[in-house]
Amino acid sequence: MIIGGAEDKLRDRVILSRFVHLAGGAEANVVVISTASSLGEEATSLYRELFVQLGAAHVSGLRPLSRDEAFDAKAAKVVDGCTGIFLTGGNQLRLSSVVGGTKLGMAIRAARDRGAVIAGTSAGASAVSTHMMAFGASGATPKHRMAHVSAGLGLLRDVVVDQHFEQRTRLGRLLAVVAQSPGLVGIGLDEDTAAIIDAEETLEVIGRGAVTIVDGSQIQTDAFHTKGHRPMMVSGAILHSLPAGYRFDLKTRSLLEPVADLSPRSMRVPRSTKETMRRLTRRIAAEGANSLSVERKLPRRQEREASE
Amino acid sequence: MIIGGAEDKLRDRVILSRFVHLAGGAEANVVVISTASSLGEEATSLYRELFVQLGAAHVSGLRPLSRDEAFDAKAAKVVDGCTGIFLTGGNQLRLSSVVGGTKLGMAIRAARDRGAVIAGTSAGASAVSTHMMAFGASGATPKHRMAHVSAGLGLLRDVVVDQHFEQRTRLGRLLAVVAQSPGLVGIGLDEDTAAIIDAEETLEVIGRGAVTIVDGSQIQTDAFHTKGHRPMMVSGAILHSLPAGYRFDLKTRSLLEPVADLSPRSMRVPRSTKETMRRLTRRIAAEGANSLSVERKLPRRQEREASE
Repeated sequence: MIIGGAEDKLRDRVILSRFVHLAGGAEANVVVISTASSLGEEATSLYRELFVQLGAAHVSGLRPLSRDEAFDAKAAKVVDGCTGIFLTGGNQLRLSSVVGGTKLGMAIRAARDRGAVIAGTSAGASAVSTHMMAFGASGATPKHRMAHVSAGLGLLRDVVVDQHFEQRTRLGRLLAVVAQSPGLVGIGLDEDTAAIIDAEETLEVIGRGAVTIVDGSQIQTDAFHTKGHRPMMVSGAILHSLPAGYRFDLKTRSLLEPVADLSPRSMRVPRSTKETMRRLTRRIAAEGANSLSVERKLPRRQEREASE
Repeated sequence: MIIGGAEDKLRDRVILSRFVHLAGGAEANVVVISTASSLGEEATSLYRELFVQLGAAHVSGLRPLSRDEAFDAKAAKVVDGCTGIFLTGGNQLRLSSVVGGTKLGMAIRAARDRGAVIAGTSAGASAVSTHMMAFGASGATPKHRMAHVSAGLGLLRDVVVDQHFEQRTRLGRLLAVVAQSPGLVGIGLDEDTAAIIDAEETLEVIGRGAVTIVDGSQIQTDAFHTKGHRPMMVSGAILHSLPAGYRFDLKTRSLLEPVADLSPRSMRVPRSTKETMRRLTRRIAAEGANSLSVERKLPRRQEREASE
């Protein structure tokens, strides 16, 4: 389950309750991994409280900050018995740099293989794939050198995931990556929106916004000889914009019949600790806003003279 | 020639010099129509000075502000002898409301039919087509009721044109219109970028950014039963992002061979009146910025709680 960030934490919690449900509901044993976040244990406690409220039996936290810690057998052991793993937001490069290729990284893959549900939000969503969108510039037009790809955690193959998709205008960089790597399907997740991908590579959309899918199988491009930061030619990209309830087959790259019930699923939950929740979500929002400043604009060759 | 707005007026002027060239260069007889603009005669004088500098023999201005003035035979007469018409930016609804279906509107069509080049920038670009993007909300995800279409000047059929495309994040509304009207090809023009469309419906891109083409011929959508302002499902839209030098066949909806020389064309021009030019372009930019406030955000059902 990959989430576009800023998932609803106070109201219907469509996405987070679906995660707990998939992890086994009252039997769920969830591990929150907050390595990506700069908020430390606060991110863990926010999600721990949420998942407990949503009915999970057991929630533990892991926050390795070095590869040594991620190689520690104790960390892998926490993951061994779990039914669900939740990767917080923050900085996906921190997550992949610390966890990728360690014992913990292997334990996460093993958990996936035995049927545990792996969820990531924001940076955590980007990090699940084999090819990870590491960072890049915003904008709707694809440009050369606009996006940087690194190796992710390898839980999802043949896709590249981008999040906060509509809110931070990231179509250009997704098109740029897919044009250079048309074997990958580009998945752009709006905020408070998630794609659930099962073992058959069927994708289902839940949440408030849309999931954008870029299929580059028919693409023609000059990406391989564009220079500098110039716009690249991308012709024939097939675009799908899918709101909640719609399903897509990633293997055949085709739209499937939607789920029967297109209205959002929700669960009633106690509202006792709403204030703590609000404070923590505000801090997480602030962390997200700070990370925006990293998203530099591409240099402009030509000053803009007028814009009527 | 449709221009995405904010075309370079101080440096190479690739777009504006191409317009003068197409209008006949030293023989060019150009009419500037500034009805869309709120800047009055200033917009006309800015473009008059530019076109004279770029070598046009004769430049006149027209600024009908009522349908009576647009029905006046004198206005149509100004257009009768011209080799080029330039529609300024501003508000496309003002242009289409004043000029559409009048004697002046007919004279512009007649000019097109006898081979005069018709250029429009920003609002002027939107207004040339039969179906005109009148106004709408910004954002990358297509949503119901996001864009409003009116009748334009009818110079370009089977397309719908949007401008300031990357800069104002208008993919969503272009997808929304094409999903509802898949007979139209969507054309999104970045700033300082133009599409030149000839009588054979071949489109050529010039300028700094890219032209986005949305082909809806293979689209599947739920646009006809989406409600409120919710995201709509759009699957199978074919997207082309074409920088300068690339060509596209609007009839067959396919990429053509690029022009031989992919480097920008430029003309040397005197820089005598640069200061006046700067002042006027700043005012035009300010006018553009004001019009941005009109671009309301769609109402949000759910407040955003966090955005990491």
